[in-house]
Amino acid sequence: MTILVSYSEIALKSRQVRARLERRLADQIGFMLRRAGYTGFTVHRRFGRIIVDGAPGEAAGAVARVFGVVSAMPSTRVNPGLETVVQGVADEAIKTIRPGAGFAVRARVVGSHSYGSRDLEVEGGSKVLEAMRDNGVHVNLDRPDATIYVEVRDNDAYIYSRIIPGVKGLPYGSQGRAVALFSGGIDSPVAAWLMMKRGVETLPLFMDQTPYVGPSYLERAKTAFRTLAAYTPVERFRLYAAPMGPVMERILESPEPRFTCVLCKRSMYRIAELFAGREKARAIVTGESLGQVASQTLENLYVLDHAVSMPVLRPLVGLDKVDIEAMARNIGTYEVTAKIVEGCKAVPSRPSTAAKLNKIEALEKELDLASICAETAERVQVMDES
Amino acid sequence: MTILVSYSEIALKSRQVRARLERRLADQIGFMLRRAGYTGFTVHRRFGRIIVDGAPGEAAGAVARVFGVVSAMPSTRVNPGLETVVQGVADEAIKTIRPGAGFAVRARVVGSHSYGSRDLEVEGGSKVLEAMRDNGVHVNLDRPDATIYVEVRDNDAYIYSRIIPGVKGLPYGSQGRAVALFSGGIDSPVAAWLMMKRGVETLPLFMDQTPYVGPSYLERAKTAFRTLAAYTPVERFRLYAAPMGPVMERILESPEPRFTCVLCKRSMYRIAELFAGREKARAIVTGESLGQVASQTLENLYVLDHAVSMPVLRPLVGLDKVDIEAMARNIGTYEVTAKIVEGCKAVPSRPSTAAKLNKIEALEKELDLASICAETAERVQVMDES
Repeated sequence: MTILVSYSEIALKSRQVRARLERRLADQIGFMLRRAGYTGFTVHRRFGRIIVDGAPGEAAGAVARVFGVVSAMPSTRVNPGLETVVQGVADEAIKTIRPGAGFAVRARVVGSHSYGSRDLEVEGGSKVLEAMRDNGVHVNLDRPDATIYVEVRDNDAYIYSRIIPGVKGLPYGSQGRAVALFSGGIDSPVAAWLMMKRGVETLPLFMDQTPYVGPSYLERAKTAFRTLAAYTPVERFRLYAAPMGPVMERILESPEPRFTCVLCKRSMYRIAELFAGREKARAIVTGESLGQVASQTLENLYVLDHAVSMPVLRPLVGLDKVDIEAMARNIGTYEVTAKIVEGCKAVPSRPSTAAKLNKIEALEKELDLASICAETAERVQVMDES
Repeated sequence: MTILVSYSEIALKSRQVRARLERRLADQIGFMLRRAGYTGFTVHRRFGRIIVDGAPGEAAGAVARVFGVVSAMPSTRVNPGLETVVQGVADEAIKTIRPGAGFAVRARVVGSHSYGSRDLEVEGGSKVLEAMRDNGVHVNLDRPDATIYVEVRDNDAYIYSRIIPGVKGLPYGSQGRAVALFSGGIDSPVAAWLMMKRGVETLPLFMDQTPYVGPSYLERAKTAFRTLAAYTPVERFRLYAAPMGPVMERILESPEPRFTCVLCKRSMYRIAELFAGREKARAIVTGESLGQVASQTLENLYVLDHAVSMPVLRPLVGLDKVDIEAMARNIGTYEVTAKIVEGCKAVPSRPSTAAKLNKIEALEKELDLASICAETAERVQVMDES
């Protein structure tokens, strides 16, 4: 079969950018199909579509999960002679339309042909009625139970009845590279996924707070990572881990326990920035939102932002918890990340919600956190690999 | 009638925070109803709900648009005696259920009563069947066409059949204050609205690039502003304008026109930060996304972020254009903001997509942009007011 692939956002770009993005998307579709075990197919770019030839219809599911794909249609390709196309429509209908159902034929004809879209719709519809005479099907243009689509482009006609919605976004890696703070809770995998979807090559960085968190924490992060890995059209997608233990130990020496979380979070930002610099990444992605937990105040974001000079991207900042959870379900990370794991043992009883920057900076100096963060960044390691 | 109001996210907070947010939400619901012209109602908080007494059922639409509201149910309140409640269910059914339809009764009984939820569902269902005997209605628990809901709480029973979905989020102003760059294009009103929905009191700031943009640009921003104003439960919601003309003029003196847009955007950030400082706002909100236009690169975000020290919140950064457009339609800003207005005349033919920070900072120094930005921030005025 042939899989027709559409991508709307890429089509809006300048010609040069579009060609580059289309090539990348075509390559990534090929990669994802091979990884899913398909062989013997080819991927072309034509008339604002990507066309996968020689893959079975069910491969459209894998195609639809490639960032940048708006929809994937498993199609039959025939030559564009009117009779052949009309017969193709009837064949598709017989496979698709259930007895008694209302149907429609929708056609689009591009290029020089002896017939127009309307002709195909009328003749295709008649042929379907004739072919399925004994099944009591009827035309219903307003609310059809099934629709047979025909696209005629130059020398080929494509006939399909299923449109599988894609994940949308932009081709992975087309928009630069970022480091994503990755805890394995509900939020951070969604945040990372959203930026991946917007074309950012994302390096997930797990802040390993052992011994202040237990092994279930690490396992949860790994499982969430593997779910994200299913979306990345690259040879090697890696989960990195920064051993935060010594940083935490140092922070706990502070005489003011209510600032523990702010100091810890600022240290995470710092380590992420140092790691990002080494990996030529240009931004830090976090799953932070506003007002979901007591510490997510504008005041605290201000203090956090001042720990680094890279942009901090917070794709969840304007979303409600229920929306984030719904996204996690769609992505496939919800089940594991909603698991309650043993929380961080270093969290004080009353974390500050309005830390002052100069106060925090003074504390950090006293504790010499900068140097221990730098050491930690040097010790970042690969924790898992897809 | 009585309008029952539910709010899920607030209910997750600590008792103290919850009480504060509930009070704020109740006040704002009252405010929005008065502004919509309703009088003679009262607003109470009880059993994790807000209850509006003495407003007509259609007022539930206005309630549903208050940030923080998950759903609004126009209800009839009766005393909780079994017979009265069962009769109330039948009365609601007669008003609601169409002939031949399948229905269900769903009950929730809290407190000490002689009956349970199941009893109400069974007896309510029987009563409906009896009362609507001649209409051919039938019970359908799996996929009812209509559902009659009953909530019994202590001394009252509430009966309703319509659940109007609310905008969700958190009460306006509960999460601090921010300044939102507001162009009146599709993106910036959505970005501002999302942060407003997350409880941030938002001051929209229009960067008035006259004479490099035409009056249609200003009109569009005003219309978008008025749509947002319909959501703000405050006496005075204002659109501010910064007269950018002199800044633009200065920027155009630069020998390197390809940096015009970066310099302009950095100036906007700066002016917004100065204005925010004066207004005690803690963050800047922008409608920036990634990869939608050529200038939205991680490199450019890096350079932009360095213009200010406040956090820049970009709620759209992980969203696709189609998703943003769908949100704009829901909010009501799409129609006006999608209008093509005359673009900025200062845009160079090839804007830079990868400006280097030190290069930009040197140019700014040469042009002495800092002082003209400071002057502009002093000249920010109210452009429109709801």
